[in-house]
Parts: sequence; structure tokens; C-alpha cells
Amino acid sequence: MRPRHKKHLAERMEACAENLMVIPGDARDYREVIKEQAWIDTAAYFGNQNPVHMEIGCGMGTFIVTLAARHPEINFIAVEVVADVIVVAAEKARQAGLTNVLFVRVDAIYLPKYFPPHSIERLYLNFSCPYPKNSYKNHRLTHRKFLALYRMLLTEGGDLHQKTDNRHFFEFSLAEFSAERWTLTDVTLDLHADKETYPDNIVTEYEDRFLKLGQPIYRLEVKP
Amino acid sequence: MRPRHKKHLAERMEACAENLMVIPGDARDYREVIKEQAWIDTAAYFGNQNPVHMEIGCGMGTFIVTLAARHPEINFIAVEVVADVIVVAAEKARQAGLTNVLFVRVDAIYLPKYFPPHSIERLYLNFSCPYPKNSYKNHRLTHRKFLALYRMLLTEGGDLHQKTDNRHFFEFSLAEFSAERWTLTDVTLDLHADKETYPDNIVTEYEDRFLKLGQPIYRLEVKP
Repeated sequence: MRPRHKKHLAERMEACAENLMVIPGDARDYREVIKEQAWIDTAAYFGNQNPVHMEIGCGMGTFIVTLAARHPEINFIAVEVVADVIVVAAEKARQAGLTNVLFVRVDAIYLPKYFPPHSIERLYLNFSCPYPKNSYKNHRLTHRKFLALYRMLLTEGGDLHQKTDNRHFFEFSLAEFSAERWTLTDVTLDLHADKETYPDNIVTEYEDRFLKLGQPIYRLEVKP
Repeated sequence: MRPRHKKHLAERMEACAENLMVIPGDARDYREVIKEQAWIDTAAYFGNQNPVHMEIGCGMGTFIVTLAARHPEINFIAVEVVADVIVVAAEKARQAGLTNVLFVRVDAIYLPKYFPPHSIERLYLNFSCPYPKNSYKNHRLTHRKFLALYRMLLTEGGDLHQKTDNRHFFEFSLAEFSAERWTLTDVTLDLHADKETYPDNIVTEYEDRFLKLGQPIYRLEVKP
């Protein structure tokens, strides 16, 4: 549940300065913006050369904080555009004492400005906004516009994992990945019925709600 | 429901000689078999050059008979391996006075022996046997072995439409089509919830049963 109002947002963000990077909104054409490379030096930030995995739309961070605690050998970038929300995630990671997650408040479309080509080994999209109206479909995080961007970000052999409860969004995603010639390496149309196949699945609060309603969770893995 | 025993099968098949072609089983390696081309001249059989659409696994023929009645401008080939079953379908088409469906009793694997390359404009797979055991997966009609065969049969621009109630079979199909670089041009994970998008859908008896149980029907369209 997204809180309606965050008190003392500025101070709280300030307190997370160590693991939260806030990039102001940018209304210009993203193709222009990404020309002004302002690359984040992840190796310098984390102090090692570990592979980098990224969640786009981390929300309040349950998924990324759990994953990062399990995998100290991986560096995680958690991207989220809503400041009120990412600050909660950054606080969670601080409280857990995690040093392998960097939170970045930025619109996904500008990622290639901040992360060099082929620098991300895995991308996660968990319960991204489905933008159900057709006129908003180019906002969906699996629109081919974004797939071009992910192809640019991912390392050779890198992949993307997507989960959603939204059937139309998942259908749209399958079609977009196919149109852009990504290879589906794994897919389930009812993740929790196949539980034993996915023992490492991290159930987010959002996922848990749909689960309790008996609705299927869709999940896929793809490579560009 | 498949009847346990068909009376007078031979006579009934004989009575359908006009629209039913029975090709005896062939246990040899199909790659050897298809070298002995024995092409069925569909233009001569139908007496016109109309495009040819094919259903593989027509069962008792509700789907193909309904479709053929709607589309006199298309020639249909209905393939089914079980003699007891295809005879019922052939009788249905005769009773409906259809002259644009030819039933062929043959194992799908031998199709390239009987139909020339790029001669089929559309393939239908409706509720094909899912062969749930992993050790039988190469029998599934969307196994990459069959996709290679369909690629050979389909015309330039031709496509394949699949429907199934079996989730694992559909997941397998999505992955196989992706691995073989087919393009998903349409997909729904709950056909009947999207009814208005598919007004031409023909509900088979089998489909109706699953529908009444509230189970989703999965459907896709792909191009090689």
C-alpha cells in the first residue's frame, strides 16, 4: 500500500544519502539526454567488480532487500521513480545493514544515461504498472521502446525476469518480447501452482495479496 | 468423449470414401518416408485454387466442420490419426454437404510426404494431446521437431493458431516457438474472458467442458 503522505521526506532522503541517489526528473527527449553520459561508477561505489543486477520499479523494496541479503556476491541497483516510495526501500536496506544495494530515483527511460552499455547482468521487473489503457501502452515497461533500452544495458548472456498478476500486461509482454526477437527461456502462467519449480521465489506483499485471492501470478525469463 | 467401440468402422469409412483419405500407419523414420513424395493434389481434389488451411488433430470435427461451413472460399484439410474418430468427423462434413474439407488419416509426422512445401496457409492446433510426462515431450505437437515441419508446410506469410486448456503444454509451446524464432502475433491467457476480441471463436465440446469448470483457455497466433 502506498502511503498517501510521507512526513519529513527531505530529511529522510538526506539520512539515506549513502545508499540513495536522487536524479531529478528530466522532461527532455531521452535520446538527447542519454548523450550527456553521467555514468554511475558502480565498481567504485560498491568497492568491487561483482556483477550488477537491477530491479526497475523496486517499490518499497521487499524484493530487492530480501534478494540482496541472500546474494552478497552480487551488486544490486534498485530503480524507482517515486521518491516517497524509494525512501522506504532505502531505509529498509540500511536497517538490514546491506552494502550491496544502491537505490536510484530515476525514470527508467533515462537509465542509459547513467549506466554504460552491457553493464547489467540481470534485470527484474516485478509487478510493474500495467497501464491498462491502450493509449498508454508505450509507458509499459515491456514496450519495445524499453526492450531496446534493456538490450543496450544487458551484458552478453544477460537476462530479464518478469513477474506480474496482470494478464493483459503479461500477454502484451510476451508479444513484445517475441516481436523484438528475445528468447523465452522460462515461463509459468501460475507461479504458485509450480512452487516446487521456483523454490527461490520471493513473495512480495503485493504478490501475497493476489495469491490470497487465488489469482495466478505470471512469470517469465527472457534473453535479448 | 471418444466412443469406446465403433461399429462397422470399415463400412462407415468406405461410405466416406469421397471425403476421407486413409493413409496406413508407417513405422519407418519419417525423414526416410518423406523422401518418397506422394503428394495429394489438393487443387485437383477441390477443383479450385483456393488457399488451403489445415487442422492437425481434428478429433470428431466440430471445429473444422463449423469453420468450413463459414468459409466456402477456403479449402480445409483435417488431419487425425485415430480412425474411429476421423470417421465421425468425415460423416459430419458429409451430412452438412460440405465439399471444401478433406479428411486425412495420417500421423502428423508424415505430413511433408503428402503436402508439398509452402502449400498450407494456416495451421490449427486445437486441444492437442499435452503429453504431460516430460519423457513424451517430443510427441507434443509444438515440439521443435514439429515446428520445423510446419515451417516447411506453411506458405510465406502463413500462420498457426493454437488453443489449449493445458497450462504446462501452453507454457511449453510458448518456449518452443520462441526458441525456434517464431513471432507471436496474438496471445490470450483467458480466451473467454476476452470474448469480444475473438467473436469468431468456435467453441468445441471439449472447450465447453473446461469453460464450464471456470478454467481458462489459452490461445495464440504465431508466424514462422
